Amino acid sequence: MIFTIIYVGVVYPIAGSWKWGAGWLDQLGFYDFAGSTLVHSVGGWAALVAVWLLGSRIGKFKEGKSFAILGHNIPLATAGVLILWLGWFGFNGGSVLSADPALTSLTLVTTSLAAAAGGVSAFIISTLAHKNYDLTMFLNGILGGLVGITAGADQMSPTDAVLIGVIAGGIIVAAVALIDKLRLDDPVGAIAVHLICGIWGTLAVGLFGKMAGTTQFLHQLTGVGAYALFCITTSFIILFILKKTVGIRVSEKEELEGLDAHEHGMDAYPDFRLNER
Amino acid sequence: MIFTIIYVGVVYPIAGSWKWGAGWLDQLGFYDFAGSTLVHSVGGWAALVAVWLLGSRIGKFKEGKSFAILGHNIPLATAGVLILWLGWFGFNGGSVLSADPALTSLTLVTTSLAAAAGGVSAFIISTLAHKNYDLTMFLNGILGGLVGITAGADQMSPTDAVLIGVIAGGIIVAAVALIDKLRLDDPVGAIAVHLICGIWGTLAVGLFGKMAGTTQFLHQLTGVGAYALFCITTSFIILFILKKTVGIRVSEKEELEGLDAHEHGMDAYPDFRLNER
Amino acid sequence: MIFTIIYVGVVYPIAGSWKWGAGWLDQLGFYDFAGSTLVHSVGGWAALVAVWLLGSRIGKFKEGKSFAILGHNIPLATAGVLILWLGWFGFNGGSVLSADPALTSLTLVTTSLAAAAGGVSAFIISTLAHKNYDLTMFLNGILGGLVGITAGADQMSPTDAVLIGVIAGGIIVAAVALIDKLRLDDPVGAIAVHLICGIWGTLAVGLFGKMAGTTQFLHQLTGVGAYALFCITTSFIILFILKKTVGIRVSEKEELEGLDAHEHGMDAYPDFRLNER
Repeated sequence: MIFTIIYVGVVYPIAGSWKWGAGWLDQLGFYDFAGSTLVHSVGGWAALVAVWLLGSRIGKFKEGKSFAILGHNIPLATAGVLILWLGWFGFNGGSVLSADPALTSLTLVTTSLAAAAGGVSAFIISTLAHKNYDLTMFLNGILGGLVGITAGADQMSPTDAVLIGVIAGGIIVAAVALIDKLRLDDPVGAIAVHLICGIWGTLAVGLFGKMAGTTQFLHQLTGVGAYALFCITTSFIILFILKKTVGIRVSEKEELEGLDAHEHGMDAYPDFRLNER
Repeated sequence: MIFTIIYVGVVYPIAGSWKWGAGWLDQLGFYDFAGSTLVHSVGGWAALVAVWLLGSRIGKFKEGKSFAILGHNIPLATAGVLILWLGWFGFNGGSVLSADPALTSLTLVTTSLAAAAGGVSAFIISTLAHKNYDLTMFLNGILGGLVGITAGADQMSPTDAVLIGVIAGGIIVAAVALIDKLRLDDPVGAIAVHLICGIWGTLAVGLFGKMAGTTQFLHQLTGVGAYALFCITTSFIILFILKKTVGIRVSEKEELEGLDAHEHGMDAYPDFRLNER
Repeated sequence: MIFTIIYVGVVYPIAGSWKWGAGWLDQLGFYDFAGSTLVHSVGGWAALVAVWLLGSRIGKFKEGKSFAILGHNIPLATAGVLILWLGWFGFNGGSVLSADPALTSLTLVTTSLAAAAGGVSAFIISTLAHKNYDLTMFLNGILGGLVGITAGADQMSPTDAVLIGVIAGGIIVAAVALIDKLRLDDPVGAIAVHLICGIWGTLAVGLFGKMAGTTQFLHQLTGVGAYALFCITTSFIILFILKKTVGIRVSEKEELEGLDAHEHGMDAYPDFRLNER
């Protein structure tokens, strides 16, 4: 919570002002319609630094092997992703500040197509690679497609949007595996979704759609690099100080018995029996 | 999934073009504002054919008797119906393509009134008939009312909308009982909601509202018949071929132990103990 | 259900007509933009009367002490509050009947700021007072902020909205404790949220924003008093008659074993094992 207040209260506004505040990246020609970088990568870099400084959950990696710790309620996770998809219509559609009906409609179409393409693509690639129908890959593929279209949702044709989503879906499957291989424990795939697909969406503005071109691609790349430097540095400083002072990790007992019981003094589901781990 | 791709990718667009694509039913005078037939019945016919070809779940019908297999999470089902109700404001309200404020407002009012009337009506009729307060009847009554108003949401007065919803609620209770009596196993009442109330909503355009009249009713009836023929035929062909080739049913073991575990390789709720069946 | 039909069908329209129907309170100068009083307090007074006439749940108060009976599904409660927050954008934003873009935008901003401020404020105050991180206080603080801004969402500056939310959050923590101390059993904090924050929001129109002033504050106070008198009287008459005739409470057995099983003839979660109480 302390990190969130500092990062959202200080770092986010500074980072945002570089583009949406008509700052130096805006003047350079960097483009980020609704925040593949300004919203998602800025958060994603902090997630990466936090995951690294925090360390993995007990039982996630043992003797060099990775063990899946599944979310406890997959139906609720699915409902959450579908609600996010709906929310993105406000997020991207509402970012057409002129409220121009034709441009808003295009933005809604590209947003939805990228989400669908991301989900289907991640699911097919994950099924081919891992030989089971992993629902969480479908869900993160949807989110990856949504993050990927966000930087250029108003610039893309429907076909561009589908391609951006398909690639985002592939990126999700590869990035989740890579992050796991690096022994970074990211329980919800936040780094793959928000950081890697955020970067992808930002670069895609230089590859697809009305603005595509080498110069634009280099502007996008400059933006990605500048935000990487700024966000890694600031999030590291804040999290490192917190780690050395108040600490950023609960005790082993709290982790095993649940933060609901120990931090909040209540059970998430007081009426139901849990399986022994 | 294979069926969905073929049916939604090929059959739906052809069926839709008859009316929304200015095809022969549109020229005839058939009316379907937002899809009681074009969305709901087209899907409902496929559901009926699928339920018939798939057969009933293990334990649903034994020695000629029907046994209820309750949904595992009624609060989530209720939340889902309420979110669908909200989504219908986009579905029907957004179908006023002119975005005319007065007509959009009327459409939102008729949509909400039909939903409420459908829920209350199904609940009262089901309570009188079955002597308990069956929440799932209330929920399916809401959906029946929503499907029922969809064909004429822009044509009805608020009173018409309430009447259409009330009748839709009654249809839900009767249709669920009838489908059960026919020994068709429809776990969520999809046939009652989408097919039967979809037909009802389509015919209601000829009985209530601005377009009511014998000629219009016959146009609506023609549409219902044409879609029945087309959708039953196409969905039967696709599903029958799938049944004879890759199969459309999981093994008995998978069905009893759960598709989450066997198809997806994960539990829906890994942390919670289940009751023995 | 009988109470709801009478109260919503008869009492609410009469109460509403005093202000939104251009009635005597409207002519006096009483202001209630989207219903801190007309929606929330009118319901809140009935909740207070119902809680009093119904009595507390078995096990809530024993030997003069109060025992927490936690909600059975905190994640679903949290999702519900976030969906309510989203719904409030329709509720308050849609109450700008002119659909004026600038005023609608302001209303959305004040609504969101009050919600956030209410949640954070209730959480901090509750943490300081009770030494644990009570998520339900955060949730009720959000709702308190939303109810508190509703009467003047179109009249407030962003700063006003934050202040109204902060105070609403404090009110929630104090009111929940007070209601508990009075040995009134309000399982979801409805009285604190809808009644007390409804009154606060109504009075806040006279203290903050464009209409602030002593005269306006007295108009608001008159409205609060008039609605208190009318709603307490009418809800008491209806509930008292129901209590003496059909009864308003389930049997002890039904209460202990669950209304899902006894009233509805179905389990809310038929597949899951419950803890023994």
